[in-house]
Amino acid sequence: MNNLELTTELTTELRNLIDQMKAGNRRAVARLITHVENGGPETARNIIKEIYPLTGKAYILGITGAPGSGKSTLTNQIASEYLKAGKKVSIIAVDPTSPFSGGALLGDRIRMKPNFTNKNLFIRSMANRGKLGGLAMATKDVLHVLDAYGSDIIIVETVGVGQSEIDIFKSAHTTLVIMPPGMGDGIQAIKAGIMEITDIFVVNKMDREGADRRVNELQTMLDISEKIDVDSPNNSIRVLRSKGWRPPVLKTNGLTGENVPILLDQIKKHGDFIITSGLKKQRLIFRYKHYVVDILKYFLLKNIEKIVFSNPKINEFIEKILSYEKGNDPYSISDAIMEVFLNRYF
Amino acid sequence: MNNLELTTELTTELRNLIDQMKAGNRRAVARLITHVENGGPETARNIIKEIYPLTGKAYILGITGAPGSGKSTLTNQIASEYLKAGKKVSIIAVDPTSPFSGGALLGDRIRMKPNFTNKNLFIRSMANRGKLGGLAMATKDVLHVLDAYGSDIIIVETVGVGQSEIDIFKSAHTTLVIMPPGMGDGIQAIKAGIMEITDIFVVNKMDREGADRRVNELQTMLDISEKIDVDSPNNSIRVLRSKGWRPPVLKTNGLTGENVPILLDQIKKHGDFIITSGLKKQRLIFRYKHYVVDILKYFLLKNIEKIVFSNPKINEFIEKILSYEKGNDPYSISDAIMEVFLNRYF
Repeated sequence: MNNLELTTELTTELRNLIDQMKAGNRRAVARLITHVENGGPETARNIIKEIYPLTGKAYILGITGAPGSGKSTLTNQIASEYLKAGKKVSIIAVDPTSPFSGGALLGDRIRMKPNFTNKNLFIRSMANRGKLGGLAMATKDVLHVLDAYGSDIIIVETVGVGQSEIDIFKSAHTTLVIMPPGMGDGIQAIKAGIMEITDIFVVNKMDREGADRRVNELQTMLDISEKIDVDSPNNSIRVLRSKGWRPPVLKTNGLTGENVPILLDQIKKHGDFIITSGLKKQRLIFRYKHYVVDILKYFLLKNIEKIVFSNPKINEFIEKILSYEKGNDPYSISDAIMEVFLNRYF
Repeated sequence: MNNLELTTELTTELRNLIDQMKAGNRRAVARLITHVENGGPETARNIIKEIYPLTGKAYILGITGAPGSGKSTLTNQIASEYLKAGKKVSIIAVDPTSPFSGGALLGDRIRMKPNFTNKNLFIRSMANRGKLGGLAMATKDVLHVLDAYGSDIIIVETVGVGQSEIDIFKSAHTTLVIMPPGMGDGIQAIKAGIMEITDIFVVNKMDREGADRRVNELQTMLDISEKIDVDSPNNSIRVLRSKGWRPPVLKTNGLTGENVPILLDQIKKHGDFIITSGLKKQRLIFRYKHYVVDILKYFLLKNIEKIVFSNPKINEFIEKILSYEKGNDPYSISDAIMEVFLNRYF
């Protein structure tokens, strides 16, 4: 990578922050994450390279769901339950739709105030990382910082329903999809992809009307979906699901915490299942392929001009273009360059 | 490129348009360009592959300059002069700053009305190509369509002063930079990069006060710049300039056409110079390197996920990540993948 002139040197500041993080300093973690967000992949790579041997221990719990499902409140209860059990918990709240969501998220977090002073809890809202690699890549970087920090559980909570669920799924051991009680909006409220990424369905606000109706809808959907061949090799998402796990459908009350211990039991059960079924490793590979794709995209895009201009071999190809002969146009020559690249290496 | 599933089939519609273009049909050219703009690089590649053997004949004249320099009016006069000499002329007006510039450009073009009915003139305003490869790439594609159409001269006119000049420079045989008379704003009105991309300076509106002052300023700047080592290997732009050509500074009147024949003589003289000096070929190579970089960027970025996920060899690298050993983090593994790519191929 010398041609790309990437530094692999950690600055003294970053090295100190990493040392402080290792000693359990939450402020240092927060500042490292800020560096990851603001410095982009160039900064993140130096941090990740250093802390990577400390990672691989955290359990990553994805939580997503429709607005109005009480997802943040329930996340608070789940975190509390883990804290009570002596676990170190980190929460990343991701909102890709708004770069100004900090305020709103903070509002949600006011309910979590009893937890704020708990030294075993770390909360971070991530709204954006500008153009530097994008939010999905930044989230992956931050997950590794929190893993290295020693979090037992990292909860990644996304706002809304969209592409973000797929991204959580790529990074999570267990994904919860939170639903409000059925409001007569029926089954179409569940987007197509959701069925495939969910490990556990949670119908929250169980005290409200329609909770049982929603549970029944979900069970019906699961009945139907079990008839789909999840092991089809044509579907890179489905293939990461597995026969042998039918997502349970639980009812909870995020405000009172009712049934949250049962939910944690189910999460534990799913955590055991992904180990015995081999799914854990499959998902890890899937996760890291995406991470690598993000990194390759970012650095290739940033450096391809330098690569093409700095290497004399590329001239042979360009000379061909100047022949103005059929098949030597810039697109065909680019095809040829990619073909050699793909064939020789991949 | 089969792995990327790119079609190389021309649709019947595109093939018909190309046939009509070959027969000199201006409307077919306009429609082909619309396809290039709206269909993005996937469509452009099929068109360019087909028409490429017809290209390489047009002389590309870049015209840029500050707002208020009377650039569009002068472009009209230059086009008229070439038309009088029996040349087939195409004009591409590029405005990367505004997707809504069609109207303004059309306003400018009203002065060109006498030319509009001339069958040897083709005018096109390009403001945008959304996210599909970007304007710089679309402009390169369109240049090739107009070249294949049989244009003797293609004038690429950009609005304003900025990155667009560099892009013109990459595609032009000769670049004119148009200046208004000096308004006491002095030498800082000329941005740093301009000096390096200009083949001919034109002080337009020569009847106005300050024209000679501007000429003198430019000559002074040229005196200074001649002391710079243009052959420094560290500067990919400067290296494409050459000792032996000091950009002449001409005065013109775009409204009356005064001195425009002299300007055309100078363009011809520069055209001869780039051949005898070998600069023409150097510039062509430079131009096509950028074209290839644009194409590689677009298609690699679009397909790298498919490449990584479809190839079993990549699994070996990903497995290493799961060791959580120092040096096997996702960034280092991505480095390793790129390193093999760069070393084996480049």
